[in-house]
Amino acid sequence: MNTVATTADTAPGPASPTAPDPAPTAAERRSAELERLLARDPGRFRVLTGDRPTGLLHLGHYFGTLRNRVRLQDLGVDVFVLIADYQVLTDRDTADRLPEHTEGLLLDYLALGIDPARSTVFNHSAVPALNQLLVPFLSLVSVAELGRNPTVKDEISHARQAAVSGLMYTYPVHQAADILFCKGNVVPVGQDQLPHLELTRTVARRFNERYGPTFPEPDALLSDVPLLLGADGAKMSKSRANSLPLSATADETARLIKGATTDADRHITYDPELRPGVSSLVLLAALCQGRDPHEVAAEIGHGGAAALKRTVTDAVNGHLEPLRARRAEYAADLAYVRSVLRDGNERAIAVAETTLGEVREAMGTFR
Amino acid sequence: MNTVATTADTAPGPASPTAPDPAPTAAERRSAELERLLARDPGRFRVLTGDRPTGLLHLGHYFGTLRNRVRLQDLGVDVFVLIADYQVLTDRDTADRLPEHTEGLLLDYLALGIDPARSTVFNHSAVPALNQLLVPFLSLVSVAELGRNPTVKDEISHARQAAVSGLMYTYPVHQAADILFCKGNVVPVGQDQLPHLELTRTVARRFNERYGPTFPEPDALLSDVPLLLGADGAKMSKSRANSLPLSATADETARLIKGATTDADRHITYDPELRPGVSSLVLLAALCQGRDPHEVAAEIGHGGAAALKRTVTDAVNGHLEPLRARRAEYAADLAYVRSVLRDGNERAIAVAETTLGEVREAMGTFR
Repeated sequence: MNTVATTADTAPGPASPTAPDPAPTAAERRSAELERLLARDPGRFRVLTGDRPTGLLHLGHYFGTLRNRVRLQDLGVDVFVLIADYQVLTDRDTADRLPEHTEGLLLDYLALGIDPARSTVFNHSAVPALNQLLVPFLSLVSVAELGRNPTVKDEISHARQAAVSGLMYTYPVHQAADILFCKGNVVPVGQDQLPHLELTRTVARRFNERYGPTFPEPDALLSDVPLLLGADGAKMSKSRANSLPLSATADETARLIKGATTDADRHITYDPELRPGVSSLVLLAALCQGRDPHEVAAEIGHGGAAALKRTVTDAVNGHLEPLRARRAEYAADLAYVRSVLRDGNERAIAVAETTLGEVREAMGTFR
Repeated sequence: MNTVATTADTAPGPASPTAPDPAPTAAERRSAELERLLARDPGRFRVLTGDRPTGLLHLGHYFGTLRNRVRLQDLGVDVFVLIADYQVLTDRDTADRLPEHTEGLLLDYLALGIDPARSTVFNHSAVPALNQLLVPFLSLVSVAELGRNPTVKDEISHARQAAVSGLMYTYPVHQAADILFCKGNVVPVGQDQLPHLELTRTVARRFNERYGPTFPEPDALLSDVPLLLGADGAKMSKSRANSLPLSATADETARLIKGATTDADRHITYDPELRPGVSSLVLLAALCQGRDPHEVAAEIGHGGAAALKRTVTDAVNGHLEPLRARRAEYAADLAYVRSVLRDGNERAIAVAETTLGEVREAMGTFR
């Protein structure tokens, strides 16, 4: 499970770019309208997004969500990026190598173009006033509502724990605190995360009804998440060791692509339904080159898997080269990287304390 | 429901002082041993206790738990008194008159002899670092364990809400945070609260096993809670408006006692089983006078309910007179009363931040 806005590690997102479009759902129409508003008046919006520090970010994350954050930041939207360190414990017993994974996320963010002067990167465990919001918010949600949440049900069935933890069960409420502490009004999510966001909207609405207007009801910005498969033909995932990490070297990337599952047909086509392995590679090259996957496939033609893999390797390495160079620069200056999180935490703490003050005021707490 | 250590508003406690003693349970033996240790070496102990600001404290609270806190403080034990303002929302939708009820608690504490120079009075909503502990602690407890908690089950059946809230469901984990944030190692409880404390011990033990020794496993100090009935013959309760509030005037007290349910037998005896109304009044007089209830009953003899009520009224008003005088003094200086909570909150915040720092260190959070 990822935290808000990182769908690449959870259930498959919407169909690939070239699949025939069904009629747009209400959520899709609202999201499209939101895109127009974001472009027209970015200063009105604050985005909350983030990742759990459970491993290396990979190309699935990159094309699914990370690129989109930088795009929103560059549009002029105020972006808050949460490193959800406590949430690592929702589906496993211990948080291994938390400092290492957090550092990896920070390096990836900076390399990608998250700009600490404009965006706020912070971690859960550093912001007590955010976490405190979990307490009043839990009073606004029934146990039945928690038990019904389909994403939680799904996560529970995939968890690495014998028993479902209280943290997993209350996860959507903690997520409401993540979004509402900074009054985030836009949350980039995949379709599968919509029920979580619906609970955040419910919490905001109930709080406002009981205690007076305090929180926005955030809107979902649905992202077009391409379905990229890992080397083993399963969905690319941090936790399956089948992924192409952003932090891999060019050689490691070449080796990983070389090991990817394809098929025996030398004629390369783009057909995600019938040829998932080949099509995922084609799509990856197309995404890196900003081209149509059918065109990429046609160009390779009868070159077979070997030619396809060369094309993909060149495309990925070409696309990631500047990112890797920046990542290496930041990796050589970890004091700066740490200061980015420290500064972001300070900003998040100030925002959270202001919101918590409003919550106390609204609830009529004794001062 | 009360928070830790206030049993007077929940299920009946142990039998009245003069009931025949059954063999002591293991919990009772441990508690008795703890009493000896408290007397011998009070500096080793920190007590966490508290109340929800839901209404006026009454004589049931006073003889059940409040007096005991002052006794522990005066023994030299470090006492933390929590005003559990957020927990008001576990079993009702809104926290009405929170400032008024909080002020009432503060006045009662001070009037009773809680000394802010030695004890720390604080409220939930003021201590974010305490509330943050709820998050890692939730990861240590399974949903099955939460659902099994007998006190929560019981509270749920008495709640004033249509649906069980997430706050009610996670209440024992929040209570673990209340106790462990200050490393409380003694918690005065009634028998009915033992399962809650067991969960706190479980949380402490699991945290220590996973992340290294950090928290004590607190022990229960079982208090002898006398079963006092309200004017309507039901158990005295803040929420039933049948109680004798500590803050009532002498006249109000006389009127409330006059209205108490008794029976037609003019010969006054102490027999809680067969004559609950009469016996509760006898017990109340006995508690106020520090005497044996049988002796008090014998003295009244054939005087009937009227004589009994005169005796009780005199005993209660006599006992509470100095307390009321002090309460009035404090009520005339609310700026001071507020400063007591402010100072207590500052102390609690400092303690919570130290503990949270240790928790982050133990969990290996990125700094």
